Amino acid sequence: MLISSTESTAPATASGPHGRIAASARVVDSPVMPNDRFDAWFAARRRRGVFQVTRIPFAQLSNWSFDPRTGSLAHDSGRFFSVEGLRVEADEQIGSWEQPILVQREIGILGILVREFDGVLHFLMQAKLEPGNTGAVRLSPTVQATRSNYTGVHRGRTIPYIEHFVPPRTGRLLVDSLQSERSAWFLRKRNRHMVVETKGGVPEHEDFCWLTLGQLRALMHRDNILSMEACSVLACLPGGPADDGGRALHELGEVTSLLCEIKARYEVAQHRIPLARTASWRRLDDEISRPDGKFFKVIAAEVHAESREILHWSQPLLAPAPGGHAVLLTRRFHGVRHVLLHARVEAGALDVAEFGPTVQCTPDNYRDLPAERRPRFLEYALSAPVERVLYDAVLSEEGARFHHAEVRYRIIEVGDELAEVPDEFVWVTADQIGRLLRNSYYLNMQARTFVALLHSLD
Amino acid sequence: MLISSTESTAPATASGPHGRIAASARVVDSPVMPNDRFDAWFAARRRRGVFQVTRIPFAQLSNWSFDPRTGSLAHDSGRFFSVEGLRVEADEQIGSWEQPILVQREIGILGILVREFDGVLHFLMQAKLEPGNTGAVRLSPTVQATRSNYTGVHRGRTIPYIEHFVPPRTGRLLVDSLQSERSAWFLRKRNRHMVVETKGGVPEHEDFCWLTLGQLRALMHRDNILSMEACSVLACLPGGPADDGGRALHELGEVTSLLCEIKARYEVAQHRIPLARTASWRRLDDEISRPDGKFFKVIAAEVHAESREILHWSQPLLAPAPGGHAVLLTRRFHGVRHVLLHARVEAGALDVAEFGPTVQCTPDNYRDLPAERRPRFLEYALSAPVERVLYDAVLSEEGARFHHAEVRYRIIEVGDELAEVPDEFVWVTADQIGRLLRNSYYLNMQARTFVALLHSLD
Repeated sequence: MLISSTESTAPATASGPHGRIAASARVVDSPVMPNDRFDAWFAARRRRGVFQVTRIPFAQLSNWSFDPRTGSLAHDSGRFFSVEGLRVEADEQIGSWEQPILVQREIGILGILVREFDGVLHFLMQAKLEPGNTGAVRLSPTVQATRSNYTGVHRGRTIPYIEHFVPPRTGRLLVDSLQSERSAWFLRKRNRHMVVETKGGVPEHEDFCWLTLGQLRALMHRDNILSMEACSVLACLPGGPADDGGRALHELGEVTSLLCEIKARYEVAQHRIPLARTASWRRLDDEISRPDGKFFKVIAAEVHAESREILHWSQPLLAPAPGGHAVLLTRRFHGVRHVLLHARVEAGALDVAEFGPTVQCTPDNYRDLPAERRPRFLEYALSAPVERVLYDAVLSEEGARFHHAEVRYRIIEVGDELAEVPDEFVWVTADQIGRLLRNSYYLNMQARTFVALLHSLD
Repeated sequence: MLISSTESTAPATASGPHGRIAASARVVDSPVMPNDRFDAWFAARRRRGVFQVTRIPFAQLSNWSFDPRTGSLAHDSGRFFSVEGLRVEADEQIGSWEQPILVQREIGILGILVREFDGVLHFLMQAKLEPGNTGAVRLSPTVQATRSNYTGVHRGRTIPYIEHFVPPRTGRLLVDSLQSERSAWFLRKRNRHMVVETKGGVPEHEDFCWLTLGQLRALMHRDNILSMEACSVLACLPGGPADDGGRALHELGEVTSLLCEIKARYEVAQHRIPLARTASWRRLDDEISRPDGKFFKVIAAEVHAESREILHWSQPLLAPAPGGHAVLLTRRFHGVRHVLLHARVEAGALDVAEFGPTVQCTPDNYRDLPAERRPRFLEYALSAPVERVLYDAVLSEEGARFHHAEVRYRIIEVGDELAEVPDEFVWVTADQIGRLLRNSYYLNMQARTFVALLHSLD
């Protein structure tokens, strides 16, 4: 009962990772976790995994406190993350500003374990419970952990399957690259994206299930099932050989050159500053926010969980202003699908700028700006006729540090009207994106998520 | 009189950049600047371009001063660079330390203009005069400039040929990538490496000359002719199709994975601190240094030049401890040349670590350490028999900010004895390095310099 959505054209012996990944994408149901059983399993995870999250004043946080000198908010152990101040200085066009920023020195692992069942690659996904998520459970990578997690700062909590991702590994690495976190909120944070194939037996765990890439891509079309982290790792899977047949609108060197140009142009500098002296932001008893309510708040929460080893803790969370939008415009040139990327400067970027989707914003943050200073293509995307919308679903930001942070992702097909695009935007093919994703820091979190979603349309 | 060193096997019509670059490498003399005329021209540049550099107390610097609060040394305009303090924190193996560091927010351009003469690509090289260099003039990229230079902070000094490297450009980009500066001394500094081909006429300038790649590679074998910057840019030139025939010892993914592993392992954090409170370093009237004299000093210099538009100025310079060594070990596996790279953590690296050559150090800095804590392969390299030394020459660090900083570069062929290498070292092919160099921050300055030198052996 390995059900393929299309006639398989791959030879049965295709043994390289590319061919086997493509083959797994064509398998849209599997006896390992049949689709009709998945829904029941996932619903049961959601019923079991419920957090009670209560906002509390900062003063009631356990083991978290404000540094009396700088005002930064940190854990007493010095681990996890801290909330600090950031001053971004750039040229006149970008301007300068200050904001709170999450600082986390550790490089986290986002790792998916894969294994063949009956000759088809399956991906081990975790029904992961995080306090910040609406509906709580998301289908996440097998392992989503920082060193603090797996070296015991969490006081003895063990991370299932972590042994496949730390030395000495025995499996085969299909993906291993550092990719940026959400750089509007995190300072120079990056995660290690890993996909490891094992040939051995893998013990079962009630919160984990094996799915084919075809099953995962079908689930991407439903609201709030897959986490953005899962999409981001899946986006990095090696693709097949070039499918753009040299018909890309721009050479790859021109695409990466645009990013060099942006980085050189704006002379962005990042300075950590005391959180207590972050202009335009104020600290109240229970939130750090701007008087106009824009961008985000930092809040404190008490979390009670039934199914976790640690049943009760408190922590700060970053709560973005609601209404996040991400839009990817797509069209065909010479018969080859292209997508429109935006070279975006983000406050906490490791290296000034990365490619984001065409639009990535919370429109309300720009409500009082004149039309010409609002994000490019936002109006265009918001007014797109429904028949042009190829993909439309809501995904959540990671819920261990973000609170009720949802983004509506849409892929919109455009006509011939956008051959010419402004400086800082560029049309690229899926094959070119695949080549960029073998390296670090070309595509931001939202763009990587879109890459996985884009593949789900095939 | 285009003299080829070998029978050309390239078709005469090879018009892609790869083929034309390889063709230029085979041309070892040229009527545009014949070899016998080059020496006279370069000697004349050296006679004309003489700096008188006098060490002065910091108090005598014009327009540079110490911040009374932090002790940082900066230019009154806020441009150029500043000398600040850096605290590096890492795990137990790497340790933590403090040091002065140069901070420069701007991304500099290192750009070489190329043009065909009689069907052969020639590279426009500048006889560049810099105060810190012994013998002063080095053969450098066409343009070596920061925004301060070409936007007029230097008070009207113009940069010849800069128009080929800033928008709107008319030439064809052969190379455009950001690469790191010397990360032991610079905080997160990077330069834009560019090679631009023009079809148009290019005005002559007495300090510039056109050379083929074959001529440049011959010059690399002489001490102190080419600058490391020139080598670094030439290293980024696109190579031909894969020449390792899939016989590389490791897949490229394994190579880049090693760098991910190192970055994740050590949890390196960089904190800017007041220069005045940098442990183990002291500020005297005329130098910032360690009592044991290790690593480097920051000094102040008064510079008089005869041939510059600005005839007289003063500035700080970083003077490394003498005796810099860089060694690249090489051997063949399955008939294919490999080189041994070291995944190196450097204090100011943008992203923790990059690949450096096998050895990169000033041995005297380690004189009081037990043998097992000295750099790996240093003893091995220092005791290598002379017949194994494929390349041996002295190159200078950039002389606008470094004083009398010379490094002896050696490429040493090893026998069968080094098939097994320690963790953090990896054997890679020249073709793999070429693929890494299309992206940023894989190879450090010294490793990139070696790539150009390695090509000069062909």
